[in-house]
Amino acid sequence: MSGGSVGEDEKPDFSERFRQDFETLLKWRRDVRRFRTDPLPTGLLDHLLHLADLAPSVGNSQPWRVVIVESPDKRSEVTACFEAENETAANTYDDNKAALYRQLKLSGLKEAPVHLAVFSDEDPAQGHGLGRMTMPETLAYSTVSMIHTFWLAARAEGVGVGWVSILDPAAVSEILQVDESWRLVAYLCVGFPEEEHIDPELERVRWQSRSPLETRLFRR
Amino acid sequence: MSGGSVGEDEKPDFSERFRQDFETLLKWRRDVRRFRTDPLPTGLLDHLLHLADLAPSVGNSQPWRVVIVESPDKRSEVTACFEAENETAANTYDDNKAALYRQLKLSGLKEAPVHLAVFSDEDPAQGHGLGRMTMPETLAYSTVSMIHTFWLAARAEGVGVGWVSILDPAAVSEILQVDESWRLVAYLCVGFPEEEHIDPELERVRWQSRSPLETRLFRR
Repeated sequence: MSGGSVGEDEKPDFSERFRQDFETLLKWRRDVRRFRTDPLPTGLLDHLLHLADLAPSVGNSQPWRVVIVESPDKRSEVTACFEAENETAANTYDDNKAALYRQLKLSGLKEAPVHLAVFSDEDPAQGHGLGRMTMPETLAYSTVSMIHTFWLAARAEGVGVGWVSILDPAAVSEILQVDESWRLVAYLCVGFPEEEHIDPELERVRWQSRSPLETRLFRR
Repeated sequence: MSGGSVGEDEKPDFSERFRQDFETLLKWRRDVRRFRTDPLPTGLLDHLLHLADLAPSVGNSQPWRVVIVESPDKRSEVTACFEAENETAANTYDDNKAALYRQLKLSGLKEAPVHLAVFSDEDPAQGHGLGRMTMPETLAYSTVSMIHTFWLAARAEGVGVGWVSILDPAAVSEILQVDESWRLVAYLCVGFPEEEHIDPELERVRWQSRSPLETRLFRR
């Protein structure tokens, strides 16, 4: 958009400046585990969820189901679930790696002011089944696109997101008493980050660096 | 970023203008099925893939494996696979819906100048297994984040992306002769769109409209 902002019915033409800033957003996104405890400004979570709802979905099914977890008891139960699974995971590594694993901070569940459990409906009426007959997992993939949209929109507001996957999905569904047709896709911690980085924490602590894209590209 | 562009080591502070343009990007993204046949400018595909490679991944595993499908024979085989599965899908609807289904244009496989088959490695060494013990599907979810990043970055350049999911994943893996540990996540058509819209085609043809976010939000 070279001139002013683009209207609803005007085909957008994004500027080089926008593309540069978008690249900066991608580079600084990060999975955040160190949160400040202060709440988000009023209305911001709702705004971010509305932006995330613009994500693509198979057959326009919009299968994401977002549970805002406010109950301190339920948050504690989810945190206990994480701690148990995290200890189990630590025990699968041999000595040196296990010691490093135990030093990692892998969730901000105790500090983050907002907890979101994001589920995917495995058989939504919306969409009339289009596009998911041979690959039903595209429903969960649609929900991932929604989560990723939320993540980027949050970061553009200075808000951090951390995706906690070290959880037993069945236990989380039981704690939150959700519909049986919902599959847990992610448990998100959301809040202002304590610190910001252009490199992943797993790189800084020497757990795992990124590798060159060329190793992941193939031609046929 | 209120002033100039942000450097590599300077914490970014995104502007209101950037956030408005990002919202416009989300609103105009679209799943494209009507492509012009002219190629992308030299270097643009490579640039977009490098941006997509900045996507989040479980344990920093970067499990995505991208196959650029250039062979006309292999493209034809994939297109035939789509056509067969699409006819099977059409036959599952009753008369009125089947007639509407058959009018839908659900892929741009014959016109799009770029075909990408995106797979996810189900057991990558990178990441040392971190974060995926209880939810191994987070590998495929990481690959979806990469695809969604590519999609947004492409649209910011005026390039359209269409996600084809009406395919037999095993058949595509066989056509492209990929590693057995790879799972097909998406087959993407990429190119300049013939037309641009702020609303999904499935809404315009009255297959499925979007519904209010509030129906997907819950509190516990």
